Amino acid sequence: MNYRLLSKLLSRITFLIAATMVFSLPWAHPSLQPGNIRSGGFEWGGFFALLGSISISLIVGGVFWYFGKTAAGPLYRREAMAIVGLSWILATVLGALPYALSGTCTGEDSNGDSVLMQPMDWIFEAQSGFSTTGATVLEKLEKPELVPRCILFWRSSTHFLGGLGIIVLFVAVLGQGSAGKTLMRSEMPGPSKEGTQARMQHTALVFASIYCALNVVLTICLKFCGLSWFDSLCHAFGTLATGGFSTYDGSIGGFEAVIGASAVLWAEIFIVVFMILAGTNFTLLYFLVVLRKPGKLIADVEWRTYVMIVVGVTLLVVVFGYVNQDAGFYTEGNFWGSIGSALRQGGFQVVSILTTTGYGSATDFDSWNSFGRGVLLLLMFIGGCAGSTGGGMKVIRHVLFVKILHLELEKSYHLTVVRPLRIGGQPVEDQELRKNILVYFGLVLLIFMLSWIVLVAIEPSSTWESRESGSSEHKLLDSASAVAATLNNIGPGLGTVGPKQNYAYFSPAAKLLFTVLMMIGRLEIFVFVVLLLPGFWRSR
Amino acid sequence: MNYRLLSKLLSRITFLIAATMVFSLPWAHPSLQPGNIRSGGFEWGGFFALLGSISISLIVGGVFWYFGKTAAGPLYRREAMAIVGLSWILATVLGALPYALSGTCTGEDSNGDSVLMQPMDWIFEAQSGFSTTGATVLEKLEKPELVPRCILFWRSSTHFLGGLGIIVLFVAVLGQGSAGKTLMRSEMPGPSKEGTQARMQHTALVFASIYCALNVVLTICLKFCGLSWFDSLCHAFGTLATGGFSTYDGSIGGFEAVIGASAVLWAEIFIVVFMILAGTNFTLLYFLVVLRKPGKLIADVEWRTYVMIVVGVTLLVVVFGYVNQDAGFYTEGNFWGSIGSALRQGGFQVVSILTTTGYGSATDFDSWNSFGRGVLLLLMFIGGCAGSTGGGMKVIRHVLFVKILHLELEKSYHLTVVRPLRIGGQPVEDQELRKNILVYFGLVLLIFMLSWIVLVAIEPSSTWESRESGSSEHKLLDSASAVAATLNNIGPGLGTVGPKQNYAYFSPAAKLLFTVLMMIGRLEIFVFVVLLLPGFWRSR
Repeated sequence: MNYRLLSKLLSRITFLIAATMVFSLPWAHPSLQPGNIRSGGFEWGGFFALLGSISISLIVGGVFWYFGKTAAGPLYRREAMAIVGLSWILATVLGALPYALSGTCTGEDSNGDSVLMQPMDWIFEAQSGFSTTGATVLEKLEKPELVPRCILFWRSSTHFLGGLGIIVLFVAVLGQGSAGKTLMRSEMPGPSKEGTQARMQHTALVFASIYCALNVVLTICLKFCGLSWFDSLCHAFGTLATGGFSTYDGSIGGFEAVIGASAVLWAEIFIVVFMILAGTNFTLLYFLVVLRKPGKLIADVEWRTYVMIVVGVTLLVVVFGYVNQDAGFYTEGNFWGSIGSALRQGGFQVVSILTTTGYGSATDFDSWNSFGRGVLLLLMFIGGCAGSTGGGMKVIRHVLFVKILHLELEKSYHLTVVRPLRIGGQPVEDQELRKNILVYFGLVLLIFMLSWIVLVAIEPSSTWESRESGSSEHKLLDSASAVAATLNNIGPGLGTVGPKQNYAYFSPAAKLLFTVLMMIGRLEIFVFVVLLLPGFWRSR
Repeated sequence: MNYRLLSKLLSRITFLIAATMVFSLPWAHPSLQPGNIRSGGFEWGGFFALLGSISISLIVGGVFWYFGKTAAGPLYRREAMAIVGLSWILATVLGALPYALSGTCTGEDSNGDSVLMQPMDWIFEAQSGFSTTGATVLEKLEKPELVPRCILFWRSSTHFLGGLGIIVLFVAVLGQGSAGKTLMRSEMPGPSKEGTQARMQHTALVFASIYCALNVVLTICLKFCGLSWFDSLCHAFGTLATGGFSTYDGSIGGFEAVIGASAVLWAEIFIVVFMILAGTNFTLLYFLVVLRKPGKLIADVEWRTYVMIVVGVTLLVVVFGYVNQDAGFYTEGNFWGSIGSALRQGGFQVVSILTTTGYGSATDFDSWNSFGRGVLLLLMFIGGCAGSTGGGMKVIRHVLFVKILHLELEKSYHLTVVRPLRIGGQPVEDQELRKNILVYFGLVLLIFMLSWIVLVAIEPSSTWESRESGSSEHKLLDSASAVAATLNNIGPGLGTVGPKQNYAYFSPAAKLLFTVLMMIGRLEIFVFVVLLLPGFWRSR
């Protein structure tokens, strides 16, 4: 392992994070904060915490830079995997500094006293941001005395950075020559990447540009709905990164008190549209917007499947919600009104979960009927399209998975017929691909099952019993949903981690497990799991 | 498709079932029935139902025989798969006749009136027997006026027949020459079979002999504990087939009232030992008993893993049961007494679930802490060893699965090193095997997820709300456990299908789903799923 080269590359990551922190500084000033929630004066605590974090990052970056000054030699695959894994760990630690130094509180205890975030909370919140999960341990977001606005802006900034992957930005912005391609391979979501090195760097730049442009457009749309610049920016970051951090405890449901019911409808529509775009392969958006070829979008098997899932599942959820007379899906004697509000709610939540954003609207989806909740749990494992900012397993992997199983079943009685795997009519004759997709599903299954039973073992039942809504009878299901929601970078799950709940009540050990799962999920399993194998670090 | 050949082979299955039914006739006589539960007089209803079923089977078999009289031509792989799938469907229908004709009741309604079994109940109970699942819709087993003893004996006989697979018996008893090997391949549990045709038939005979011998020995052991011949035979059938049908509502927990507490301890020990044997590869038992080579048993990787799972999980369950102060695991101020009873209970249930038997002891495992319940749910997917009567996915597949994933992870950073897959030090260089194991896991995952969400969709929440212990909040978890318990041929699951509950309350649609799942599970996924593909039936 070429440690000097690792060190050189880690120094750049560190400087990039320090640079991003600077943009959170201005929000310490009350005049920039949202009119409805404004701190009493200048947020000196948050401001100095950010300044301190920037300083520490610069020092750490300097040490890495010094050690890596004489770095030489090519970047091998092993080094590339190591740098990706280590840079996420480093980013998480550095990203946690502002929470640590500002004395941000998770909420209030039963006496109304504020409760400071603990070390595992800092790490959890930072990882949740970078991995674009959006799971939170902060309970009273609307109280600036508990959570400074500038820290809240940093929290949403981690989504922005995490959205396309720090490494993609790294390649695009800082350039890495031969290293770029290897790094992109490890970090870019989705099973297949191709193209030359120069094209790779060009692609990264195009992706970053589309990403920034979408952020700008959504920010303006939300501002138009009546939100402050602060809220508009934070929610644009959360949407386009498919993250899900909000600045309100009630997520998007919290907008109503600020901008009124009719404006919320528009905000929800904008957010749904941009969530769908964020879950779309950015290559297709490039064809659509830059090259004006919408046909590519329609012709893409993955995108068609993605849209069909959104439409199909929304309709199912609406039907079951109406028949079960769920709140928000059914109003006595008002059929069309019921259907309208059911479509709004069902559509929003299906898109929010499928794209792995995790925003919640007015009605808690945890109050839906069992079918609706079960379907959302399954959707968590599907995720967005490859090459999007969406997490999860990706639609294309599911398309391939079903096709592969079908072909293998056919082979079991038609031994002589060997049929190629086709996507959209084109044969994909990479025999390794078949196995790789199956291995990927196998790993997700194994990690999910092990994490689930470990969580059930380490988390005391009292975590459930102490909550108003909770009962330890739900421990098995809630734990499964918490693992699914973190591993797939969604955020909210069912029950005790439902959209109106949060992760604050878990033990530090469980939070560590969630942090690891979020990183595993964001790095598409392989990179992180490989880092845990002792054989990986042994020199060859 | 050579339909005449299919017909010829189906006729033999039919005659075999008719022959087995004859052995249930004697139990209609009160003198043969257990002393504690004896019908008032000769069970004419059950007797004539069995006679009727035998007659119908003979007629059906005659028709098949007539149609297949002129059958010729070899048995191809496709025909072999068709015959296995169809013979299970046929067996299920014929096996359901005694329930249908005898007017057996599922239980009593709230007014104390007896409730007749419905058509889906007959099919469910027959499939549950043949597939050695042991899930039941009968609630008042101890009332001969609701369930004739001779019908109850038939119910346990279906376990006996299903145990080694009707086809194995068929090969061994009736001989099928070239067909034998192909049939055995489809039906014998486990991923790999080898050997010549003659050896295959010899193996089938040896397996059947060991199986019968074990049944005889356990029957004598149980008789020794004080049970009647009737109960001893039925529970031996249930144990050695890893089925789980009991003649008491309380399963093995029902023994205490009959033979007293101290004899129950012995009965449990005998049953645990024989469950472990039933879950062991019969080839190893052959080496142990016939060839006197116990070294083979110890050297076998699968068997070692199987025993380690039993020991390891039992210890975990005991520790968590004691710490959580679960009933039966913890007695205030009596440490050693607690540990003793915890080991007894934990060990029994772990073995019962792992081997896919599904017998329950005195304490309901559904009352265990979440960790214990969760671990049992995971165990359901492991199952016994290949070449045993145990269901589930089989230990060897899990061993291979973990090894394959590990090798693939290594490959992702060590592209140049290709390591062979090894089992017990021996390289297994069947490249197809790697893919087949992964495909198998993929299919189980897909079938499990789809069945789960379909069950949640079709089963009304009122099924949960109407039960004493139930709440529709548990619908998602209970449904998952019901699918797991039927697909893996266990029987009891969690909550509303827990060991002290049963499947009577489900809708006919759900019972049909369970019936299909039990068959899919018993036929190791491929055979049944292939039958559902339209391409399979199209002539080539």
